[in-house]
Parts: sequence; C-alpha cells; structure tokens
Amino acid sequence: GFAVIDNHREMRVGYPEVIYCEGKTLEQVTEIIRYMLSKNNNILATRATRQMYEAVKELQPNMQYNELARTITYRIKDIEQTDDYIAIVSAGTSDLSVVEEAKETAEILGNKVKVITDVGVAGIHRLFNRLDDIRGANVVIVVAGMEGALSSVVGGLVSAPVIAVPTSVGYGANFNGLSALLTMLNSCASGVSVVNIDNGFGAAYNASIINHMIIGKK
Amino acid sequence: GFAVIDNHREMRVGYPEVIYCEGKTLEQVTEIIRYMLSKNNNILATRATRQMYEAVKELQPNMQYNELARTITYRIKDIEQTDDYIAIVSAGTSDLSVVEEAKETAEILGNKVKVITDVGVAGIHRLFNRLDDIRGANVVIVVAGMEGALSSVVGGLVSAPVIAVPTSVGYGANFNGLSALLTMLNSCASGVSVVNIDNGFGAAYNASIINHMIIGKK
Amino acid sequence: GFAVIDNHREMRVGYPEVIYCEGKTLEQVTEIIRYMLSKNNNILATRATRQMYEAVKELQPNMQYNELARTITYRIKDIEQTDDYIAIVSAGTSDLSVVEEAKETAEILGNKVKVITDVGVAGIHRLFNRLDDIRGANVVIVVAGMEGALSSVVGGLVSAPVIAVPTSVGYGANFNGLSALLTMLNSCASGVSVVNIDNGFGAAYNASIINHMIIGKK
Amino acid sequence: GFAVIDNHREMRVGYPEVIYCEGKTLEQVTEIIRYMLSKNNNILATRATRQMYEAVKELQPNMQYNELARTITYRIKDIEQTDDYIAIVSAGTSDLSVVEEAKETAEILGNKVKVITDVGVAGIHRLFNRLDDIRGANVVIVVAGMEGALSSVVGGLVSAPVIAVPTSVGYGANFNGLSALLTMLNSCASGVSVVNIDNGFGAAYNASIINHMIIGKK
Amino acid sequence: GFAVIDNHREMRVGYPEVIYCEGKTLEQVTEIIRYMLSKNNNILATRATRQMYEAVKELQPNMQYNELARTITYRIKDIEQTDDYIAIVSAGTSDLSVVEEAKETAEILGNKVKVITDVGVAGIHRLFNRLDDIRGANVVIVVAGMEGALSSVVGGLVSAPVIAVPTSVGYGANFNGLSALLTMLNSCASGVSVVNIDNGFGAAYNASIINHMIIGKK
Amino acid sequence: GFAVIDNHREMRVGYPEVIYCEGKTLEQVTEIIRYMLSKNNNILATRATRQMYEAVKELQPNMQYNELARTITYRIKDIEQTDDYIAIVSAGTSDLSVVEEAKETAEILGNKVKVITDVGVAGIHRLFNRLDDIRGANVVIVVAGMEGALSSVVGGLVSAPVIAVPTSVGYGANFNGLSALLTMLNSCASGVSVVNIDNGFGAAYNASIINHMIIGKK
Amino acid sequence: GFAVIDNHREMRVGYPEVIYCEGKTLEQVTEIIRYMLSKNNNILATRATRQMYEAVKELQPNMQYNELARTITYRIKDIEQTDDYIAIVSAGTSDLSVVEEAKETAEILGNKVKVITDVGVAGIHRLFNRLDDIRGANVVIVVAGMEGALSSVVGGLVSAPVIAVPTSVGYGANFNGLSALLTMLNSCASGVSVVNIDNGFGAAYNASIINHMIIGKK
Amino acid sequence: GFAVIDNHREMRVGYPEVIYCEGKTLEQVTEIIRYMLSKNNNILATRATRQMYEAVKELQPNMQYNELARTITYRIKDIEQTDDYIAIVSAGTSDLSVVEEAKETAEILGNKVKVITDVGVAGIHRLFNRLDDIRGANVVIVVAGMEGALSSVVGGLVSAPVIAVPTSVGYGANFNGLSALLTMLNSCASGVSVVNIDNGFGAAYNASIINHMIIGKK
Ligand SMILES: Nc1ncnc2c1ncn2[C@@H]1O[C@H](COP(=O)(O)O)[C@@H](O)[C@H]1O
Ligand SMILES: Nc1ncnc2c1ncn2[C@@H]1O[C@H](COP(=O)(O)O)[C@@H](O)[C@H]1O
Ligand SMILES: Nc1ncnc2c1ncn2[C@@H]1O[C@H](COP(=O)(O)O)[C@@H](O)[C@H]1O
Ligand SMILES: Nc1ncnc2c1ncn2[C@@H]1O[C@H](COP(=O)(O)O)[C@@H](O)[C@H]1O
Ligand SMILES: [Mg+2]
Ligand SMILES: [Mg+2]
Ligand SMILES: [Mg+2]
Ligand SMILES: [Mg+2]
Ligand SMILES: [Mg+2]
Ligand SMILES: [Mg+2]
Ligand SMILES: [Mg+2]
Ligand SMILES: [Mg+2]
Repeated sequence: GFAVIDNHREMRVGYPEVIYCEGKTLEQVTEIIRYMLSKNNNILATRATRQMYEAVKELQPNMQYNELARTITYRIKDIEQTDDYIAIVSAGTSDLSVVEEAKETAEILGNKVKVITDVGVAGIHRLFNRLDDIRGANVVIVVAGMEGALSSVVGGLVSAPVIAVPTSVGYGANFNGLSALLTMLNSCASGVSVVNIDNGFGAAYNASIINHMIIGKK
Repeated sequence: GFAVIDNHREMRVGYPEVIYCEGKTLEQVTEIIRYMLSKNNNILATRATRQMYEAVKELQPNMQYNELARTITYRIKDIEQTDDYIAIVSAGTSDLSVVEEAKETAEILGNKVKVITDVGVAGIHRLFNRLDDIRGANVVIVVAGMEGALSSVVGGLVSAPVIAVPTSVGYGANFNGLSALLTMLNSCASGVSVVNIDNGFGAAYNASIINHMIIGKK
Repeated sequence: GFAVIDNHREMRVGYPEVIYCEGKTLEQVTEIIRYMLSKNNNILATRATRQMYEAVKELQPNMQYNELARTITYRIKDIEQTDDYIAIVSAGTSDLSVVEEAKETAEILGNKVKVITDVGVAGIHRLFNRLDDIRGANVVIVVAGMEGALSSVVGGLVSAPVIAVPTSVGYGANFNGLSALLTMLNSCASGVSVVNIDNGFGAAYNASIINHMIIGKK
Repeated sequence: GFAVIDNHREMRVGYPEVIYCEGKTLEQVTEIIRYMLSKNNNILATRATRQMYEAVKELQPNMQYNELARTITYRIKDIEQTDDYIAIVSAGTSDLSVVEEAKETAEILGNKVKVITDVGVAGIHRLFNRLDDIRGANVVIVVAGMEGALSSVVGGLVSAPVIAVPTSVGYGANFNGLSALLTMLNSCASGVSVVNIDNGFGAAYNASIINHMIIGKK
Repeated sequence: GFAVIDNHREMRVGYPEVIYCEGKTLEQVTEIIRYMLSKNNNILATRATRQMYEAVKELQPNMQYNELARTITYRIKDIEQTDDYIAIVSAGTSDLSVVEEAKETAEILGNKVKVITDVGVAGIHRLFNRLDDIRGANVVIVVAGMEGALSSVVGGLVSAPVIAVPTSVGYGANFNGLSALLTMLNSCASGVSVVNIDNGFGAAYNASIINHMIIGKK
Repeated sequence: GFAVIDNHREMRVGYPEVIYCEGKTLEQVTEIIRYMLSKNNNILATRATRQMYEAVKELQPNMQYNELARTITYRIKDIEQTDDYIAIVSAGTSDLSVVEEAKETAEILGNKVKVITDVGVAGIHRLFNRLDDIRGANVVIVVAGMEGALSSVVGGLVSAPVIAVPTSVGYGANFNGLSALLTMLNSCASGVSVVNIDNGFGAAYNASIINHMIIGKK
Repeated sequence: GFAVIDNHREMRVGYPEVIYCEGKTLEQVTEIIRYMLSKNNNILATRATRQMYEAVKELQPNMQYNELARTITYRIKDIEQTDDYIAIVSAGTSDLSVVEEAKETAEILGNKVKVITDVGVAGIHRLFNRLDDIRGANVVIVVAGMEGALSSVVGGLVSAPVIAVPTSVGYGANFNGLSALLTMLNSCASGVSVVNIDNGFGAAYNASIINHMIIGKK
Repeated sequence: GFAVIDNHREMRVGYPEVIYCEGKTLEQVTEIIRYMLSKNNNILATRATRQMYEAVKELQPNMQYNELARTITYRIKDIEQTDDYIAIVSAGTSDLSVVEEAKETAEILGNKVKVITDVGVAGIHRLFNRLDDIRGANVVIVVAGMEGALSSVVGGLVSAPVIAVPTSVGYGANFNGLSALLTMLNSCASGVSVVNIDNGFGAAYNASIINHMIIGKK
C-alpha cells in the first residue's frame, strides 16, 4: 500500500532511520514511524512538531520530544556510546535550537557529545576558557549565526576537522543566514567544511561518520 | 574654462583636496592637480595609475607615488602630526593595497598611524601579541577580505570605535568582497561600523575626523 | 546553573548590559535581567516584546517599555548626561522605531540626544531649517529607508562623523533594506560609515563611544 | 539581400534611425548606415567604436564622432531646434560618458539641451546655484552613479518629470550600478521614473518624446 | 505639537497631499488627515487599511475607500477633468490592485483615465483590439507582473511615453516582482521608463505631471 | 458586464480552459467557471483553495477537488485517453503537491500518466528499479526540490525529452527553489528543459503538447 | 591511454558525438576528434576557437567552421533531412551567434531548420509577417536577449512546443542574461520551457528529440 | 625585516607550509619560499604562475610545477605515504585543474590518492564501473561544476565522508559556480560537506586531516 519510507538515506546497521518531517503530513510521519518500529529500529525524526510527537507517542510511550531541537527520538536498542567525543561549539543563545538538533542526532548515532555554548568571538576569552574541551574532540561542530566568524577562529585553534553550520539567526544584511554561510565558505582557516544553513542534522551526521571511522568501528 | 574640480568633498582648512582618479582621464587629473597646486594645497589622489603620476610629477618634482596604495601625495605645507594615533589592522598580505590607501590618507590628513598586519583570526595568537598597540589607538581600522572575521574579534577586544573595511580579496563564494562586507555588517561585536568594499580612503577619512575631534582640534 | 548572560555586548563599567531579546524565550530574558539586577546594573533590552516587559516588570516595577523602540530600560544608577550631544536625523515617520531604538540606547549610555525627524531629501528645505542642530552635534546618526539618500546629503553638510542606519522601510525594489544599505555604503560624501539594516542600537553604541572619547571620559 | 536594419528603434518621420552597435560587426554597422544614407536619413549610432567611425566616415565625410559618448552622428537634414529644453544634470566627472550619450541623442532628436554637471549631493550648494536652469526645463534627466541620491533631491525640487539614469560608476558594493538603480527606483520623491543602467540614450529618447508633446509637435 | 505631515512631497495648488499609510499607526494617519481637512485639501491616502478608512470616515463622511486599490480619497474641491487622457493597460486580473491605485491617483490629480485590462501578450490579438484607445492617450501606464513583457510590446506600438509598473504578481522565479522589473528596465522598445514594483501611485503621479504639461496647465 | 475570462491561454478544441486562481477573488473564480460551464467546457482550475471549490460545487456537483494538487477539475466531455504516456518522476514525499498538479493537468488534457515517486538520487538503486516505466514514456517530467539533481540523472538515462520542474521544497541555501532551478538549467545531461519553480501545470501542459504531437493528434 | 571523450553528451546511433570545447586544451580537442573520426562518426564541436578548427582541419580537410556559431562540424555520413522542420526565431542581430549554434546543432542532428530573425517584439508587425513559417514548425526555438519578451508572444501564437533560449545580450540590469532568463521562466504563455543562458546547443538538441519523435524516427 | 610569511595556513610539524600566491607579488612569494627552504620545510604553493615557478626554481632546482593545478611543490623530507587513500572523483575534463590542486595538496600532506575522473551523472554507468575504488577510500572528494549533482549521487553510494568542491566551470545560469555550490549545500544525501568554489586545496586539507586521524597518526 502506502510506501513513502525514505530508504534512500537508510543507514548502516545500528543506525536509526532519519525522518525529515517538514512538508510531511501527520499521517505520513505516523505511518513511517509505525513501520520503523515494526522493524525494531531506533527512531530519529527532525523538524517535527509537538503535534506529530503527540501522535507517535500513541504508538510507543517511550518516545522523546526535544522542543528546542524539534526532534522525536526513540532508542529501541541500547546505544553503545563511544569514549571519544564530538564537540558542538556555538556563539549565542539564539543558535541553541540548531545545537540541540545536532546533539540529538550525534547521540542517537552513538556518539558522546560535549556542548560548549556562549563562546562567541566578540568576547574571545570565553572561547579560550573552553579550549581544552574543544581540542579534545575528534570532530568539532561550530554553530554560528549573524556573521559566523566563530568557525574561522576555532578552525585556527584545533587540528581536528571542523564542520561549520551557519544559522539563520540575525536580521537585516544577514539575509536569513547567507552572511554566516559565506563567512564559513570563505574561512581563512584550513580544515573547515560547511553544511546548509540551520542543518544541525547534517553536521552531526557527518561528524558521526568521521568519529566512528576514527574509533575504528568503520 | 575647464572646471571639474571636486569642491563637493572639499575639506576644511589644513586638509588636502582629494582626487578620485578612477574614470578620469590623464588630462583631467593633471588639470585638477595643477589648479590645486596654484592654491597652495596639499595633494592626495587615490586610484591613480603610475602614468598619471609621471604626468603630475612634471608639475612638481616632489610628488610621491605609492605603487601599492595607488596614491599620489604631495605635502606643500608641513603637517603637524598628532600624538594620538589610528591603528590599521589587517589579516593578510593580499589586503595590503587597501591598508596602504588608508595609511596614506590618514597621514596626509595629519594623523599618526600604526600599521599592524598579518594578524588574521586563523592564527589568533598573532593578534594578541599586538594587542597593546591596537588598544592604544583612538580609532581602529580593520581591513580584511575573505570572510572578514577579524573585525568582530577586534571589536570585542577594544573600546575605541572600529571602522571595518571589507576587501575584495578572495575567490568563489567571496563574490568580490560581498562575503566580508556581510560579515562586518552583521558583526556581533558592538562598536563596529563599515565602509564600502576596498574603501581604504573612506575608512581613514572617517577615522581622521574622529581622531581630530578627540584630540580637540575639532 | 543557567548561564546565557549575553556577555558579547558587555560594556565597560558604568554602562548597562545589553540584552538582544530576538530568539530568546521569555524565561531566558527574565533570568538574565534578574541576574543583572542582582549586580546593580542598568538595564537595556532591545527587540523586546510587551510580554517580556510585563514579565520583567514583576522583578522591578520601575522598568520602562518603549513600544515603538521595542526596548526595556531601567536606570538603577544615576546617569550623568553629557553636555555635548548626538543628533539622530531621519527622513520619514515610518523610520521612527529605529530612531527610538537608537535614542533609548544613546541615552542609557549617558549621552544627550537631539532627534530631528521628517527631513527627507525630497523636501530638502526642511533639512536646512534644522542644520544648526545637526551641525552642533559631536556625532550624527542618519536613519533612512527607501533609497536612503539622506546620509549622503547630511554627510556633505557636516564635519562630524556620520553613522548611517539603513532601514527596511519601503517595498518592491527596496528588497527589505538592501536599497538603503547599498546607497549608504556607496555614499559620495566622505565621513559616512554604516551599520546593519534597522540596527539603531549599533549606531547609537558607536556614536556613544565616539561622543565619550571626544568629551574625554574615555 | 542583407537586412538587419534595426527597425525596433525605428522612429517616426523626421527622426533619425538609431543603431545600437554593441555586438554588431564592423560590416553590419557599415551596411546599415550605407542603407540609411541612401534613404536620406539622419544618423545616430550608439556604443560605437572609433574603428566603426573610421569605416563609416568613408561613406560620408561629415560624420561626427563623440569619443566620450561613443556616438556617431550625421545630420543630413536641418534639425529645427525647439525653444524649450531638456536639462541633463549629473553628479561627477565619471558619469560624463552617459551624459554625453544622452546629449547627443536629445540633440539629434531636435531638442535644445542644457547640461549641468558636477552638482553631486555631497556638496549640495552647487546644485542650488544651478536651480534656475534645472527648473526651467520641460524634462530633467538625472545621471548619477555610486549611490545615485541626486535623483531624489532633484525630484523634490522640480515640478517637471524627472528621468533617472543610474550609472555603473563606482566600485565594491556598487555592484556595477545596482546601487544607484535601486536608489532611483525607491526614490521618495514623486515624479521620478528610471531607465536601465548607463542608458543615456533611453533617457534622452523618453525626454524627447515628452518635450515634443509639450511643445505640441506631437 | 505633533508634526509628521509630509510636506516634502507637497504638491502644487489644486493637487491633494498624498499620505503613504504603510508603517503609520491609525493615530498618525487620522491626525494627518484631520490636519489636511482643516486646510481644505483634497485627500489621497495609499496603502490604507479598511480600519484606517473607518477611522477617518468619522472625520468626514464623504471619504471614499477603494478596497482593491487600498486608497482613501476625498474631493473637497471640484476637480476639473482634462479632455486628454492617461491609458492604464494591464495584462491579468491579478494586477488589478495596482491598476486601481494608479487610477485613483491619476483621477484625483485631475486626469481623465481609460483602463484597458486583460490584454496580456500571450493572447496578443486582445491588445490589438484596444489599440486605438491606447494610441489616443497622452501617456500610457503599463502594469504587468510575471514576465512583464507587455511594456515592450506596447512601447513598440505607441509614440506616447510609456511608464511601466512591474508588479509582484507571480511565483517562483518571479522573485516578488524582480522578473518583471528587469524585463521592463531592459525593454528593447524605446520610450519606456520604469517605477518601483507595485508602485501604481508613482506611475500615475508621473503620468499626471506629463499629461498636465502637455495640456498646458504646467 | 464582467469579462475577465482568460482567453489568452485558450486552448484548442477538446482542451479545457485553465484558471489560475492565485490572486483572484472567490467571486472572480466562480464567475469564470459559471461562464465556462455554460460553454460546455471541461474545467481545470489550479492554485484553488478548498473554499473556492465549495463555491463552484454549488454550480455543478460533479466538480472534483484534489487537496494536495490544489486543483478543481470537471470533465463535461469524455476525454479519450492516449495509449502512450507521460512519466512524472519525483524524489521525495514533500514534492508531491507539484507532482499532483502536473498529474491533474496532464490527465484532463487527455494524457495517460505514470507517476514514479520516491526515487531521489541519494538512493539511486530505487531509480533503476523503475527505469523501464520511465524509459517507456513519450515525455518525462522530473519534479525535484532541494538540490534538484534528479533531472540530470534521468536526463542521462532516457532518450525522450525531459521537462524539469524545480520545487521550493528545502530550506536555507535552497533559497525557495533557486538551488534546484539553477541545477536544472545547468544540467550536464542533454535533452532537459526547465519550467518555473513549482510549476507542475506548465510542465504538464508542455508534455501534453509534445505527447499529442507524437501520437499524431496534432 | 588518454580517455576524456565527452560521453556525457553521447547520443544514440546516427547522431554525432558532441564536444564542448570551453575549458579544454587544443590537445584534448584534437585527440577526441581524432578518436571519433576513427570511429566513422559525424562531428559537432561547440564553443570552439578558430585555432582549434585549424588544428583539426589537419586531420580531415572537410571540417567546417562557423565563426559566428563557434562550431566545428563534419559530416562523414549522409544525413537524411526530415521534411518537418524546427523554427529558430530571434529578435536582434546580436543574438545571431546563439541562433547559429542552435542551427548547426539541429542540422547535424538531421533536422530541417527555418531561421526567422529580426522579429523582436518592439516592432511586432515583423513577427506577424513571418507567422506562417513559425506556425508550420514542429518545434519552435525562441532566442532572445535583453528582456526576452519574444518567447511569451510566440508562445501565445503557436500550438507547437516552444523552447526558449535567453541570451546574455544586453547591459546593465540585464545582468548577463538573468533578465531574459527570468522573463522566460515566468512566461504567461503556456507551452514554453527554458534552457540555460546562451545554450543554443541545448535548445536544438531538445528540439531535435521532439521533432524526431513526432516524425516517428524515435 | 620583511615578515609576510603566511602563517594563517600554518600546519603542524611534518606538514609543509602552504603559500597562497594569488594577490602576492613575485618578490613576496620568492622571499617566503627562500625562508621556508632555510627552515628545511616541504613546500606547497597554490595559485602560482609559471613565472613564480621560474623564480623559485632559481633557489632550488628540484621544485616542481604542475601547470594544470597551478601548484609549486618541493619535497625536502621524505613523505611516508599512507596505505589508506583519499578518492578524488570528478565529472568532466574541465574540472581537472581543481582535481589536480586537490591531488597535489593531498599527496604532499602524505596521503595516497586515487583520481577517478570523467564519471559525471549524465552517464551514470561510468560511475558504477568505478564504485569499488570510490568505496575503498577513507574520504571521498567530489569535484563538480555546472549543476554539481555528482556529490549527491556519490554521497548516497558511500559510507565514508564526502567533501564536495563546487567548481566555476560552466556558463550562464551557473553564475561562476553558484549553481554547483547551492546544489552541494542542499544535497539530499547525508554525509556531504562543502568547501568554497574551486577550493581543491581546502577539500584536500580537510580530507587529509580526517584520513590521518583514521589511520591514527593524529
Ligand atoms: N533536518 C534535516 N535537514 C536535512 N536533511 C535531513 C534532516 N533530517 C533528516 N534529513 C535527511 O532527510 C532524509 C529523509 O528525507 P525525506 O525523504 O524527505 O523523508 C533522511 O534520511 C536524512 O538524510
Ligand atoms: N578611493 C576612494 N574611494 C571612495 N571615495 C574617494 C576615494 N578617493 C577619493 N574619494 C572621494 O571622492 C571625491 C572626489 O570624487 P570626484 O568628484 O569623482 O572626483 C573626494 O573628495 C573624496 O571624497
Ligand atoms: N503607494 C505609494 N508608493 C510610493 N510612494 C508613495 C505612495 N503613496 C504616497 N507616496 C509618497 O509618499 C509620500 C508620503 O510619504 P511619508 O512621508 O512616508 O508619509 C507622498 O507625498 C508621496 O510622494
Ligand atoms: N499553476 C499554474 N502556474 C502557472 N500558470 C498557470 C497555472 N495554472 C494556470 N496557469 C495559466 O494561467 C492562465 C490563466 O491565467 P490568468 O489570466 O491570470 O487567469 C491559464 O490559461 C494557464 O495558461
Ligand atoms: Mg585547524
Ligand atoms: Mg568594542
Ligand atoms: Mg562630512
Ligand atoms: Mg518633483
Ligand atoms: Mg514607443
Ligand atoms: Mg537524455
Ligand atoms: Mg502556445
Ligand atoms: Mg553517504
């Protein structure tokens, strides 16, 4: 019958399917998750509304909803956490929803995560206070809106790969994230690559691949 | 007869006239400078070609040409230098021509200038090594291309006004300076204002006004 | 515990903390202001909703709300006003909310302010009528939407530094303020620098730094 | 045989044909002009190279070339000049080539023209000195690059229709004339309409239509 | 007291003041209109909401509201209509609100108007059926969204000046009117000038100036 | 009386009129459909709201509404379906509303349609599973949002003409469909042409013309 | 050894290989053509310089070069021309190089071609004079720069599919073809699809596929 | 003395310094390389002209120049190559210079590299033929211009991280690489991150970091 399950981003064993809820109806989301539960999969749904969450909680009461991240998660299998970790670094409070999406994604993909927020470049001492945590990571995700300068500074301070996520936080000449996006693409620090504006999921997915390959679970 | 002298940006006594040479013919530039010499003015011409310089040197052998800055200058009157200074801070070698345009402008307008180059954010320790010089200035001009992050970092470290000059240095998603321009306009550090891409002249002119007002020569 | 205090607009002693409320929750804003009150700070919160104001008024009944400016302010300490002043010049009624944000900011930072509105370039005699007030200022903030031509005209009439704020007022080829932004960046008048679209706060913060340095309270 | 005559700018009796030379070969331009001469027409060719001029001068020695305007003109018939005139107002020396294209066009279309240059808004007194000449015109063409603010100021001072021509003069955030174009489209002065960037021809053609209708030669 | 009356676009005797209501509060609009009524002026307010209309109708019951045009009008003095007329030509039903704004403006400025709609270029015979009416006008306003091709076709068929108004009607690569705007600016027909996207007021104001000058009421 | 019927996209006998409802009032849509019913036409209305549907169902109870496609259809005459078919291929669930608009259009224009969804390039085996159906079509419509890569892959696999429809599905650097639009215009596969963002109607209309010409009903 | 043969525009039996020469070295182009000659293929190379032509003529003296089209062609096999034809319609002389690229492509792919130039919309009678030829075609290619309005007008006059090619001809707000591109994508005429700016090859390739399918040689 | 050494791409021990030559003078490049040779470093200079190469060869005859890559390299120390490799996958011949820059960079940073070219998505079988090589890599770099679809397809076929490099290859609506850039940022395949247009160096630098961390040389 109904067959919209998104196999095309299916992941390898042990990884959950990921449902991108934007532009899907309540019915479509529910049906996909029902199907995945029947396959004994972990669940990660992004850009989910609370209403979607209420609906899928009917199917399985242990579903979790992260309001800020707008994610639905469910762990049917125990996820063995790695020792090595991914650092998620961000500048301001307003970027937190992207940070949370990245965190939820990285964790359900089996990664340990350290979140370091409120270290924007306009008060750079704050960043230096947290440098050990950042330098200890296998991969660093930098989340920043407005001018997005944080990724260049971090990129110059660490030897691990940096994945930069521009956010749409800001106004005026920010042009909905274009400003931070261009900054990150033009970073004069080497070792920085970029994902789409507000794409916390994508950054964490990338980081997870790299982290797992380093650990050797490849 | 011929009367294109640019009075409309005429400056107060003691300041030189400024000639913007782009889009002017050799003849126009020569005529304007001949006229200004006859009035016993200091001379500053920006965006000047060496060919223009050769021509106006015929009029007055003490004309100076700064190849990198593309400026022609001539000091007919002694310029009393201020004690307080303007700092010009820049990231890379490629921004040097804008730095030089700013320096030539600031100096002929009677300001002491300290130039601090090669302190891009990707190696931020270099910036910290020069912090005393930067913090000692009455006004700080930040010149940066590529992602232009330097202005946010400097803006967060100094209490003086920062005038940011995006440069067109870079390639690809830099879009001829758009990237640095947007970064600077969206700076999360307070105290940063912005002039046009590559406009070293404008930044220095602004800085000079402020510096002189602080000194009290207003 | 919770530590999102917006240090990145932290200011020097005697200056209030500034909270940028856009993208923050009611709870975050309240918590930050509670903390700042406990430190005996003046308060300035920008882009605040009336609802946020109602909440923080619970903490301290003398909080002020400026509907047009969308600012919350509170003066715990007496602010010594300077004699010298900042002029805020604007073209039309529709730009008033940016004018008010600038005014609230400049005043709580301890500056005297003169507001000169309704002097758009399409009826330039009105500007001339107010020229003495504009020329008397240490710094001039020009707020203009649509084509933003006012900053060039004012820039040509005063010798003080001009900080231009493009606004998003207009429609069609205004592209949400892009038109005024580009105009101001390309100003043929020297002495004009620019901040982000609708950034009344930033302009006033800049102006305040300069004004204080001129007065010598640096 | 060969029939590429550019009819699409064909004009009514008494008006010259207009050849837009950009993107045409020397041969095409020559052939078209030879044909038009055989029809006893006046000639106006825009965007013409000197090389094209040399070629067509072979056909008719009284051809004129305006280097700055890049126009070729030839008056086979006497053009009765009108008493009423079109004013062409411009800001800087760099816009002169567009001014000249407009002037050549307006004159060969039988209009009297007054050119008022060097009246940019950054030194607005210069504009006021020429106000009588500008106000005396039936139509006013305003040519301006950089921020293009001149059209708003002029539009607010005259009651005649204003046709604004943005030019590509400038650099950086000027984006090849986009800045002036947007300014002019968003003019807060009523009575201003706009033609393409650098389109001196189009402005003059429009102005000529209006001028002739006013005079009654419609 | 309160003084936002927009004198800077004040028009000559016999013309009404024009109030641009977007971004103004109910109170501001009411106050301005009360003031203008006290001066015995005709009234034209554009971009007005029905709510604004209800408010100002309290002041004067003969106020008119045009829902589609979003205009408030009031004729305190008899407007002598001209014999010669302005033609307003448009392509589709969706452009009608801009057509109506132009019509209301032209009429209260004392012009006779002929409206010719539903003559888009995709069915060009419809345009030819109305050609006599279009060719009979002193000025032709062309209103078109989507690709805006109508202005080029009309421009090629009439000898009167054409004022083109791009509209924001369309979707996708229309980019809110950018498509029609660029089309009109690049019109290969001579005699076309352009106003801002959706600016029916501006086109009619321009057309009125020209029409009155032709009639000789200049 | 009222005459907005859109004749200018009138189609040949046997084809329904098409009403584009966006920007039309309920009354206008109802009137047009009433008129068309009186002429015994098939009906296709696109971008229709449910409210519009409720209104026109009053006129004729057999009207159909497709919620996803936002189309109203009515078949007064029997439509002879072709044997040959049009394939509509799409990547994700979120593009389905554009797919449905294309399908409704193609069918009422008398074409057999095969819809192949959920074959995005990130899981390319799914596309290969459906290759026979795609290759069997006379024309292939590819509907894709985000990066729109599907059209290039399909274009390289089929010899029939491909009509690509970019959709506005996505976020951030998708810029409302710009990303997919540019991808499709730059397709390195030959045989791909493009219609406007989200224009399922246009793609199907094109495909129908081609399909009918191939069948010989031209 | 060396294997850069451009398979990605490889075509089915009877069709020539197509080499896109832009960005290829002289050596690469020569090598590819030598290889194709050895396979007894027809040759079509686009964006070829005369220098490339001189080199490949060494390999086979019957190679043809079309200077305007910048194509190299060679017919090793007799191409059976179809009776039905493709019409290539264009506005101005400056678009001729794109017209020629389309013509060379269509012909070597075995299509009869009728070229109808100089029928721009600003003089629409010229288009009507050629309407029979245009209506007689199986597919119509419309090539237009500047505002690109021609495709909408033609689209409304013919029942065959229209493939529109925007060209980069124009200046200023044309933005290198963006203007014509947007016009064509927003065409209010149904039955128009679009290829990349200046892509005469792509339009002809599409047209050829459709033409052959209609003829039945599919 | 002279101290412009480009530290901002400074790398950790064992890695060569990297000199970005664009915008540097011959003298600056020579001086920097002379200094680095004195420190017994490996050398990598990107965006270097042949003229620069000729100059630095004077210093050390074993310098290598890669014309296509525009790189100067010199290996003073033996580079131990890893067993694991980086795959560089590209679509067309025209992207080869970016491929070569990436290859030179990856190799001098001590990585084994496999280059797989000519596998564009328009002929997708070619990609499948090389899948084993691509899947065997620790990191995959995808280099593609025009529509850049290759990164999505590859991203869906491999489990290693994909670093996508958009190139400026193409024309028209490619807008100098914008098209491929947006495609890659919007990739519907997970595991893809992006660097600046034409930035082969950056992609390889990133890939090298990841590759070394996986191997354990971190
Ligand atoms: N927030 C997100 N942003 C971008 N891609 C996502 C996001 N969440 C999930 N995805 C991807 O989208 C795929 C599902 O997309 P769909 O086929 O539209 O359901 C997943 O497999 C992920 O690769
Ligand atoms: N490099 C520059 N960039 C921007 N403005 C400049 C520059 N150099 C000079 N100017 C300004 O241009 C004016 C002269 O412009 P013009 O009237 O075109 O000759 C001077 O008075 C300065 O205000
Ligand atoms: N719809 C409109 N679009 C553009 N300008 C308008 C419009 N309506 C009125 N105006 C102009 O705006 C002026 C009033 O602007 P304001 O000062 O903001 O009230 C009038 O005098 C007109 O010149
Ligand atoms: N969804 C659609 N997108 C683009 N064009 C459409 C759509 N639906 C209908 N049309 C076209 O719009 C015409 C009606 O437009 P209008 O004159 O504005 O009513 C029809 O004849 C179709 O050619
Ligand atoms: Mg690093
Ligand atoms: Mg600071
Ligand atoms: Mg000034
Ligand atoms: Mg006026
Ligand atoms: Mg005309
Ligand atoms: Mg194909
Ligand atoms: Mg048609
Ligand atoms: Mg993958």
